[in-house]
Amino acid sequence: MSSQFGTLFRISTFGESHGVGVGVIIDGCPAQLDLCEADVQAELDRRRPGQSDIVTPRKEADTVQILSGISQGKTLGTSIAMLVKNKDQRPGSYDTMESVYRPSHADYTYDAKFGFRAISGGGRASARETIARVAAGAVAMKVLEQLCPNLEILAWVDSIQHLQTNIQNLDSITKEIIESTPVRTADAAIAAPMIEHIKKIRSQGDSIGGVIRAYVKGVPAGLGEPVFDKLEADLAKAMLSLPATKGFEIGSGFGGTQLTGSQHNDAFYTQDGVVKTKTNRSGGIQGGISNGEAIDFRVAFKPTATIMKEQDTVNADGDETTLKGKGRHDACVLPRAVPIVESMVALVLCDHALRQRAQNSALTPKSLTPQA
Amino acid sequence: MSSQFGTLFRISTFGESHGVGVGVIIDGCPAQLDLCEADVQAELDRRRPGQSDIVTPRKEADTVQILSGISQGKTLGTSIAMLVKNKDQRPGSYDTMESVYRPSHADYTYDAKFGFRAISGGGRASARETIARVAAGAVAMKVLEQLCPNLEILAWVDSIQHLQTNIQNLDSITKEIIESTPVRTADAAIAAPMIEHIKKIRSQGDSIGGVIRAYVKGVPAGLGEPVFDKLEADLAKAMLSLPATKGFEIGSGFGGTQLTGSQHNDAFYTQDGVVKTKTNRSGGIQGGISNGEAIDFRVAFKPTATIMKEQDTVNADGDETTLKGKGRHDACVLPRAVPIVESMVALVLCDHALRQRAQNSALTPKSLTPQA
Amino acid sequence: MSSQFGTLFRISTFGESHGVGVGVIIDGCPAQLDLCEADVQAELDRRRPGQSDIVTPRKEADTVQILSGISQGKTLGTSIAMLVKNKDQRPGSYDTMESVYRPSHADYTYDAKFGFRAISGGGRASARETIARVAAGAVAMKVLEQLCPNLEILAWVDSIQHLQTNIQNLDSITKEIIESTPVRTADAAIAAPMIEHIKKIRSQGDSIGGVIRAYVKGVPAGLGEPVFDKLEADLAKAMLSLPATKGFEIGSGFGGTQLTGSQHNDAFYTQDGVVKTKTNRSGGIQGGISNGEAIDFRVAFKPTATIMKEQDTVNADGDETTLKGKGRHDACVLPRAVPIVESMVALVLCDHALRQRAQNSALTPKSLTPQA
Amino acid sequence: MSSQFGTLFRISTFGESHGVGVGVIIDGCPAQLDLCEADVQAELDRRRPGQSDIVTPRKEADTVQILSGISQGKTLGTSIAMLVKNKDQRPGSYDTMESVYRPSHADYTYDAKFGFRAISGGGRASARETIARVAAGAVAMKVLEQLCPNLEILAWVDSIQHLQTNIQNLDSITKEIIESTPVRTADAAIAAPMIEHIKKIRSQGDSIGGVIRAYVKGVPAGLGEPVFDKLEADLAKAMLSLPATKGFEIGSGFGGTQLTGSQHNDAFYTQDGVVKTKTNRSGGIQGGISNGEAIDFRVAFKPTATIMKEQDTVNADGDETTLKGKGRHDACVLPRAVPIVESMVALVLCDHALRQRAQNSALTPKSLTPQA
Repeated sequence: MSSQFGTLFRISTFGESHGVGVGVIIDGCPAQLDLCEADVQAELDRRRPGQSDIVTPRKEADTVQILSGISQGKTLGTSIAMLVKNKDQRPGSYDTMESVYRPSHADYTYDAKFGFRAISGGGRASARETIARVAAGAVAMKVLEQLCPNLEILAWVDSIQHLQTNIQNLDSITKEIIESTPVRTADAAIAAPMIEHIKKIRSQGDSIGGVIRAYVKGVPAGLGEPVFDKLEADLAKAMLSLPATKGFEIGSGFGGTQLTGSQHNDAFYTQDGVVKTKTNRSGGIQGGISNGEAIDFRVAFKPTATIMKEQDTVNADGDETTLKGKGRHDACVLPRAVPIVESMVALVLCDHALRQRAQNSALTPKSLTPQA
Repeated sequence: MSSQFGTLFRISTFGESHGVGVGVIIDGCPAQLDLCEADVQAELDRRRPGQSDIVTPRKEADTVQILSGISQGKTLGTSIAMLVKNKDQRPGSYDTMESVYRPSHADYTYDAKFGFRAISGGGRASARETIARVAAGAVAMKVLEQLCPNLEILAWVDSIQHLQTNIQNLDSITKEIIESTPVRTADAAIAAPMIEHIKKIRSQGDSIGGVIRAYVKGVPAGLGEPVFDKLEADLAKAMLSLPATKGFEIGSGFGGTQLTGSQHNDAFYTQDGVVKTKTNRSGGIQGGISNGEAIDFRVAFKPTATIMKEQDTVNADGDETTLKGKGRHDACVLPRAVPIVESMVALVLCDHALRQRAQNSALTPKSLTPQA
Repeated sequence: MSSQFGTLFRISTFGESHGVGVGVIIDGCPAQLDLCEADVQAELDRRRPGQSDIVTPRKEADTVQILSGISQGKTLGTSIAMLVKNKDQRPGSYDTMESVYRPSHADYTYDAKFGFRAISGGGRASARETIARVAAGAVAMKVLEQLCPNLEILAWVDSIQHLQTNIQNLDSITKEIIESTPVRTADAAIAAPMIEHIKKIRSQGDSIGGVIRAYVKGVPAGLGEPVFDKLEADLAKAMLSLPATKGFEIGSGFGGTQLTGSQHNDAFYTQDGVVKTKTNRSGGIQGGISNGEAIDFRVAFKPTATIMKEQDTVNADGDETTLKGKGRHDACVLPRAVPIVESMVALVLCDHALRQRAQNSALTPKSLTPQA
Repeated sequence: MSSQFGTLFRISTFGESHGVGVGVIIDGCPAQLDLCEADVQAELDRRRPGQSDIVTPRKEADTVQILSGISQGKTLGTSIAMLVKNKDQRPGSYDTMESVYRPSHADYTYDAKFGFRAISGGGRASARETIARVAAGAVAMKVLEQLCPNLEILAWVDSIQHLQTNIQNLDSITKEIIESTPVRTADAAIAAPMIEHIKKIRSQGDSIGGVIRAYVKGVPAGLGEPVFDKLEADLAKAMLSLPATKGFEIGSGFGGTQLTGSQHNDAFYTQDGVVKTKTNRSGGIQGGISNGEAIDFRVAFKPTATIMKEQDTVNADGDETTLKGKGRHDACVLPRAVPIVESMVALVLCDHALRQRAQNSALTPKSLTPQA
């Protein structure tokens, strides 16, 4: 369904930018998991507007309220509902846009699909929709702490327009490094130029995109399914379901098409009884199933569609006109998109870990076993 | 589920390379659709081994038999089952590989997941699995002929290693041009070099990959869903579920991250009462929903993992050893992958067309309406 | 999933009796449907406690708030979320029950399944859970008004313990007749004895059950699916998913096993060009698909498990003890269950109407077609 | 979907009575399970025509062929496909029925739904469809042997028309007793009268129905889900999805509506540290979740619709006519339906056992754990 994601750890989301709020129901979360609102809030705070001077200055606290599914600080095993109310609604800011289709936005396609759309804001196409993903992802991360205790999900801004990180050792990257600057990159040398560039572009009323790279360490071998629900297929879907994404590549990606098979194949070897690969062009997944190496992929984000420059467009009647953006938007969404990417990774991995446990019972920590 | 794809036009597939055969059940196909085995066979023939001198010389007729769901040449509206029997089984060819993990194959990960795998052949990781996709895709194409009569799904080999097509006018490409050479590219000037290069690499016992580009014309606006089942998300999943794929990009893709918003946005205009975009950096999809422009995406295929060169690896006991491929494999899978990519596009679009008809009833041709 | 129901018109529910509230997300609702909170509230008012002197005197207004999915009084086609906050929480009333398993309740089985349960109230096993069904059912009814304008869903209390209605003409029953007394039966002669009996049983601290009969007029022929998703199968699941239900029979039901085929078969005839049956032992469904006759089924509800009499039981440690119910409970749930049964019928029929429209496009009203 | 059943152990079925054959794909079966065709054939033999002198004399060997999913006698963990070819096709026998709607059959409703149906035989409404359920059920039983080693699924003919078994001790019934006569009842005293009655009714060209009772011992507590996927809800759906079923009741069922709560509640006690109930009016399920007592339910089967007596009906043009059945049909389907009921129980329990293992990991036998 449109607003559902996952097979066993399944989330259903709701909410528009200009309504009561945004939220999610999680169905299938294991019982007895420690969970409180602060666990979720910590991730939402990494996503929220106004967190630094390179993101939109809109003031939204994005405070989460858990509506159900918890008792005495533990999950009940039944559906968990969470709500983040909208605080800073300024419908007026969007007035002009109501009948005029914003270029490279979803205004026209929503009208084409539904014959109708929300009078203000972007409806479900608003980036506020991703709040629900981050809230659910925070819970998935808690489940993964139990199911895959060595797992660590990292993501960072790998490039912004032409500014590209230069990373020698992927395994040396930590969440601390990434969070040390508001731009959330993993190469300290490029952080300042990136921040400066975002500010410059913003001052021009323009916008930029870039690439986010995800690197997931400690993934147990065996996650993912043959054929359609390959792990990289579900990750690709997860990433392309995010607003503004235009591409996904895993391991060697598009660049790998320049190599021959003898250059590209990842040779196996054994280390301390564990099968490993000497290189990781597979990106941690072979035949759709994790092989125990780090999962390594990249996601392309286009430049934000809303810009403060005049653009040609049409209105709902098909009359040609021009439009100049108003409101307070991100000139570059990537720093705020990092926790969103991580959340989607957590949702995919949590789902596949539960699926693997169901079918092949490889992941059964004591702490999640009921003791009636 | 692992072997299922689609929401309303849902396929379930089965079969290994070294078993009775490969097949598919289609659930949800509309009734009264003209369908015969020849419709399906035509697509399978484009995929089968031995079709030209640049693909694997294995002789498999890959003849389809429809087991159910048809009466008097028309679909009954109930489940359609199709079977393609395996003909050319030579289990001996794979003997050495049984206990040795082929680099960048799924041998190790299947063992890691299931604790067990097929004694010969690649099991479900064999590319023969894609027969079921092509058979089902052929039926989806027949449904789309009714639901979206202007739709045309094209795909071609866009690059092979460093050999890149140079195409001036995407709209001038036809299926005839693509099928005019065995390499299935859309640029006549590059076909011969590509063929020559594949043969050279094969003679070296090596392999190469490349990029397939899909271009879908005549897509009605309104297909795709907000949030998770965005049309590009389902296409990305479909593509990354194919063996050997490492990347997906739509419209401007990774290259689009080098532009600013003012350079990137697709300006709207009106032509004969229809809303159009001046450029198509969105790749035909905005906010997850088709906008009526051509859907345009690219898929990266890594070089074939099986090569005739000695490689370092380990066996199932973890002992380090070397392996040199045997058997008859494609040095470059891309020419045969073209119809597979088209089939997955058809499956995704057919599913979304039915979903749109269910919810918003924009696509209701007379010919599919029951007349009791 | 545990808290999801439906294929195309899919609901996800949440909420416990002793938490913030109870709610639902509807995914897949057609766009442009007129919908406001009053539409939903009207059905919730028929379900709520305290509505008459034969139901629990708990005071809960059960006021619905629509959180998303509506703009300008119309559905957006995206997910609709609704919340009913809990008002009258008296956790103290349930104190004794915390560690003692209430007989024929879900306390023990929730502990057996999850190893843990809500400290107070029945968690998801509370009948408050059905609020979400009624709220969603109210929306389904609005969709059905568009898709199947002749449809009328009736349900009534057919028997309470030994008190059985005697109805000569099913087609003469109206919602007005049913709603004319608080017991919601369709036989005026039995209403007063039923009410009196409920009060007597309540005064004894005991409880009673009975049978609800549903009768759905104006169902178009063609709803339901062959094989697993037969219309009666989905109705049976819907009914047996309700708290306290122990049986379902359609058409001739268990009584029909006493007849021979020649006595039981429904002979066809034609009336005004429409195929009809002379009798309706099939209950409006043949081969899993509606035949245009009224859908006619009965649901058995056991006597309420909570009684004010001392009963033998055990606590969570397995020690044998006794328990006497406290709190304010229904001595007979059937009058309040009538709108819940109707809601589940609406959810099943709405889902199947959309499925039929998707596959066979027989139901395409103009008013639901987008006009971009 | 129409031809799919199950969440984690999901089956997809296909096949009509007058086509190539009938079959099933199982997706989600655990790996490393011992499985061969003989395991499946044993159950199919209990279902097949011609097995005794009280069932249809049609000669169909119903031989199963496993097409995929097995290697070296063990399941691969990937999709298992099975095919049973149709042998005894005599399309001529059904000629008259082609354009005439058989009363209480699915001919008319299939036309109403699809605008079209199979020219001969009942299409998917044929009872041959149940072959696929039995084949899949046989595999589910093998999985359950591993997951729930104490489980025993029994079903028997509880009544045929007015002939009712009289059973004192449900726990004394064994599969041997049931299989000792062709009528598959559990009360030796009633078997001969039942057989005699079936023969008499058949000689009259008429048919009869009855009730099958299922009794499942050794069910672990904790299977089933809160809210919609209650265990009894999924069992009810499974049963009502079978051809000719008209009712389902569990535990006290419809009869339980005659009791008060104090008479009806199942008191808890402790035996050897296990929580038990003194009575089993709950039928082994409380709040949708198994409580460890035997699951006990009854299913009503109407008299077979095909009879050798002249009946009023109409043809596809709506003209009134009469019809007299031909061909070789069961006068009473219940003896052959016993293994079908058992199969559906196995499919439901296997699915819920895997779901419970995924979410709450209570069921993790060593033998199903991969050892890479």
